[in-house]
Amino acid sequence: MTDFDATRALFQLPEGIVYLDGNSLGPLPKTAAARIARTVEAEWGGLLIGGWNEAGWMAQPARLGDRIGRLIGAPAGSVVLGDTLSIKVYQALAAALALRPERRVILSDDGNFPSDLYMAAGLIGLLGPDYELRTVAPDAVADALTDEIAVLMLTEVDYRTGRRHDMADLTRAAHRVGALTVWDLAHSAGALPVDVTAAQADFAVGCTYKYLNGGPGAPAFIHVAPAHAETATPALSGWLGHAAPFAFDPRYRPGTGIERMRVGTPPVLQMAALEAALDIWERVDMAALRARSIALSERLIAHIEAACPDLTLASPRDSAARGSQVSFRHPDGYAVIRAAAARGVIGDFRAPDILRFGITPLYLSEADIDRAATVLAEIIRRRLWDDPAYSARAFVT
Amino acid sequence: MTDFDATRALFQLPEGIVYLDGNSLGPLPKTAAARIARTVEAEWGGLLIGGWNEAGWMAQPARLGDRIGRLIGAPAGSVVLGDTLSIKVYQALAAALALRPERRVILSDDGNFPSDLYMAAGLIGLLGPDYELRTVAPDAVADALTDEIAVLMLTEVDYRTGRRHDMADLTRAAHRVGALTVWDLAHSAGALPVDVTAAQADFAVGCTYKYLNGGPGAPAFIHVAPAHAETATPALSGWLGHAAPFAFDPRYRPGTGIERMRVGTPPVLQMAALEAALDIWERVDMAALRARSIALSERLIAHIEAACPDLTLASPRDSAARGSQVSFRHPDGYAVIRAAAARGVIGDFRAPDILRFGITPLYLSEADIDRAATVLAEIIRRRLWDDPAYSARAFVT
Repeated sequence: MTDFDATRALFQLPEGIVYLDGNSLGPLPKTAAARIARTVEAEWGGLLIGGWNEAGWMAQPARLGDRIGRLIGAPAGSVVLGDTLSIKVYQALAAALALRPERRVILSDDGNFPSDLYMAAGLIGLLGPDYELRTVAPDAVADALTDEIAVLMLTEVDYRTGRRHDMADLTRAAHRVGALTVWDLAHSAGALPVDVTAAQADFAVGCTYKYLNGGPGAPAFIHVAPAHAETATPALSGWLGHAAPFAFDPRYRPGTGIERMRVGTPPVLQMAALEAALDIWERVDMAALRARSIALSERLIAHIEAACPDLTLASPRDSAARGSQVSFRHPDGYAVIRAAAARGVIGDFRAPDILRFGITPLYLSEADIDRAATVLAEIIRRRLWDDPAYSARAFVT
Repeated sequence: MTDFDATRALFQLPEGIVYLDGNSLGPLPKTAAARIARTVEAEWGGLLIGGWNEAGWMAQPARLGDRIGRLIGAPAGSVVLGDTLSIKVYQALAAALALRPERRVILSDDGNFPSDLYMAAGLIGLLGPDYELRTVAPDAVADALTDEIAVLMLTEVDYRTGRRHDMADLTRAAHRVGALTVWDLAHSAGALPVDVTAAQADFAVGCTYKYLNGGPGAPAFIHVAPAHAETATPALSGWLGHAAPFAFDPRYRPGTGIERMRVGTPPVLQMAALEAALDIWERVDMAALRARSIALSERLIAHIEAACPDLTLASPRDSAARGSQVSFRHPDGYAVIRAAAARGVIGDFRAPDILRFGITPLYLSEADIDRAATVLAEIIRRRLWDDPAYSARAFVT
């Protein structure tokens, strides 16, 4: 079991705030400041170039990758940190396409996070006009799997509605037609139990600044299934993915396994912040997290639906089909979110009309949920968003 | 004029160390720790998601880009920070190739930094077998410029020897045959005066953790000449390069000018460190920096050649043909570098036999140079590298 009062105490949460935006940027773990200061002063300042070996900077992307691996069901040595999620999507897609050289279609859903679609389009722009990015509605994905499909690229949990794809089911269906899968776990890692091994996902990518609380600009991760580890080609073939980076070989030779998915110099200061954040996850039982996420989500839905009939549930009602966020629609959604923020309840807005609330059990309590519902109800009932005093702060990401 | 005693006082340099490896990782600016702590505690901790607007995180890649622009002769609005240098090389190359759609050859020199060659090879792997990465000896580049060449990709200053290409001259020659140029300024930015505008460079990229002192894993920069700003395509088309990232448009539309070269979420903590480092550059006159760099380099060469006949100069003797490092060859180079490090003189080694010393006037004095030469002379004369006490620490990057 996990003591969620204890985990809450590990975060620095500003006084008077209910923070329902941890699905966009997680809060500061209390130990992070000292951990980062140590990296800055003792390591960078004290060891200078020696930090790469003596402070373990060079090994950190794989070491932290293993810690994330445990949260997503990936075996040791199959996850590495680096770059941003968009870059990791590109690497995974390029590698997957190269493993299906006779096929030309990337299948995704039209609700996927736009950057995943943009990166796919950019990749296709280089590969040439034979290639195609095909998008269908989320519930039409299974039927769109044909033997034309090289890669099925999906985000498990929808960034707007929290709607969750069945990763195991869709991966099985993809494999049945000979396609590979790339799963974006941006809204899954740290949000709910994930098992990429059981689901037989071929590639998985994600970010670490949302539910994992790694800090603004924290690096992304990539997982390559062991079956592909020695055949996947990284496409973005940077020197730190080379078999012997410090041999300065003029020809690229991919490193062993997941190491080849590294590109350039890792962001050492961001890694230090992430390491502090991952310490907290060592205490967390993912089944307990999920149970509490569902309980808090149901509580928010019940309160809002009872008190705010103008807010329409945009998330699936069935908790099994939802990630760890709850979204509602409202025609004045942006103004409502701003008015709530002005009263200390921080959610966020996604165009055109989605109010999005991240449910993060590590630091949210029942009282937070109740207060959020009360504040939203009052704003809606009294149309407080028309009052300029309630739109003082903007939260756009 | 620049007061280099004053700039030296702005860095935290460990007691007893002569640091000649600032061309690999610059030292810690004294103000960086507090600047980073502010970003961590007041911004991330206090503003949470609001940091993107209220603390200016979203605008930082362009704001810091302008500050770097001033050091490389790039106009405001033509430089942006992000990712790693390898990724920025890839973006610049892909964009340059797309501007020369009828041509198929990337020309480089065989002494270029391997990652630049690897990234070019990776890009070509996607573009198909019609494309070619052609490398020639550094002094054969001008003659290899033909009307087959789409892009000339060079690193201005060689990472091993410090040999400097003539950027203006080679760019002129490239343009004469209709080719575009991508200049890697990894060993130029902050090392010597650079003027990408006068040289008419089409694209320039660089890193900020070497001479600029941005810290381990500091982000890279990319410059696109204004003439190409609205026609260059980013290839790595991530959401933060979109014209309206928060519209969540399913189709990619490139942002205005240099903004389109952004990809994903910027590394906010690394940006804070870099910002502190860039403050120091506001005080520096680049002509004075260059004069002092040459004086210190000549001093090191003179001392070493007088005292260590076994060390052969690997850098150009003509200071105009050299960047801001001095390299020597020695068959036991790695052992010599380790023995020197054990005595507090930090240089680095590049296979197979190069001893490399970064000359960074912001914090190096004549006394440092003299001590380094004395230590090296004693190591060589007494073959101290055979003594295990002198190989305690390894410096590999």
